[in-house]
Amino acid sequence: MLIHELTADECRAVLGRASYGRLGCARLDQPYVVPFIFQLDPSGTCVYSFSTVGQKIDWMRDNPKVCVEVDEMVDQYNWTSVLAVGRYEEISDARRDDDLRRQATVLFQHRSNWWFPALGKLASGEEHHATVVYRILIDRLSGRRAARAK
Amino acid sequence: MLIHELTADECRAVLGRASYGRLGCARLDQPYVVPFIFQLDPSGTCVYSFSTVGQKIDWMRDNPKVCVEVDEMVDQYNWTSVLAVGRYEEISDARRDDDLRRQATVLFQHRSNWWFPALGKLASGEEHHATVVYRILIDRLSGRRAARAK
Repeated sequence: MLIHELTADECRAVLGRASYGRLGCARLDQPYVVPFIFQLDPSGTCVYSFSTVGQKIDWMRDNPKVCVEVDEMVDQYNWTSVLAVGRYEEISDARRDDDLRRQATVLFQHRSNWWFPALGKLASGEEHHATVVYRILIDRLSGRRAARAK
Repeated sequence: MLIHELTADECRAVLGRASYGRLGCARLDQPYVVPFIFQLDPSGTCVYSFSTVGQKIDWMRDNPKVCVEVDEMVDQYNWTSVLAVGRYEEISDARRDDDLRRQATVLFQHRSNWWFPALGKLASGEEHHATVVYRILIDRLSGRRAARAK
C-alpha cells in the first residue's frame, strides 16, 4: 500500500463532496470531537455550518481554534483523509453579517434535508436552544490517500 | 426525528463493533483529529491501538488528554454517535508492560488486516519511524442515537 499526500486542491475536492465530517474543538487542552454537517464555500476558504447552542458552540466561543476532519473509507487499502485546521467565526444577526448569512443560507438550501438532524427533538423532552450559524475559516489543509501498490 | 442519549453500555457496544474511529488530541488549545483503528478491550475500560511515530504520537506524549469518536451514519434520520473522553497511555517495551503488550497483541490479531494501513509506505519515499503501541483509558462515555419519530 502506498500513501500519497494530497494537494490543497485535492483536499478541497474531498471537502466539497463530503456530506458530513467531524468538528474538533478543545478547552483546557481537552479535545472534543463530534460529527457535523457542513458546506464548503465555493471559494474554498471556509466551510459553513449551524448548530443549536450546546457544548460545541460554548467551547468554540471560548477557543476558536478548531479543525474539520473528513475521511472516505472504501476498505483498509483504499481510503482518503483530509484535515482542515482553522478558526471558528460566528455569524451574527447584525447587519454587518448580512452577506455572510445570505451566503450560508444559499449553501444550506442545496441540502435542505440536512437541516433537520441538527434540530431534532431530544427524546428527553429537553428543549433545544437557539440555532447558531457559523463558519470555519480554513488556515491549513492536509490530506492523505492510500491505494494498493501496483 | 427523536434523539436519544445512549447508556454507557450502549456506547461500549458501538465502540466494540466499530472497525475504526477518530482520535482527537490537542496542543496549545489546537485540536487535531485523525482517523484511526482501535480495538476495545473486553473490559470496556480502554481501547488499544498502534501508530508510527508522528504528530499524533508527539502531541499525545505532550498532552495525554484525548478523545475517541465513532459514528454510524445510515442516513440523515438514522445515525449514532459516541464519544469516549480519556487519557493516552503508551505501552513500553519494558517488562512492567508485558501483560499490556500481550493483551494488545491478542486483540490486534483479531483484525490482522488492519495492521497494514498504519504501516503503509509513504509514496514520498520518506521512511516511517518506529511503531508505538498505546491505549486510551476511558474516563467518560457519551452517545446519541437519532431515529425517525413514530
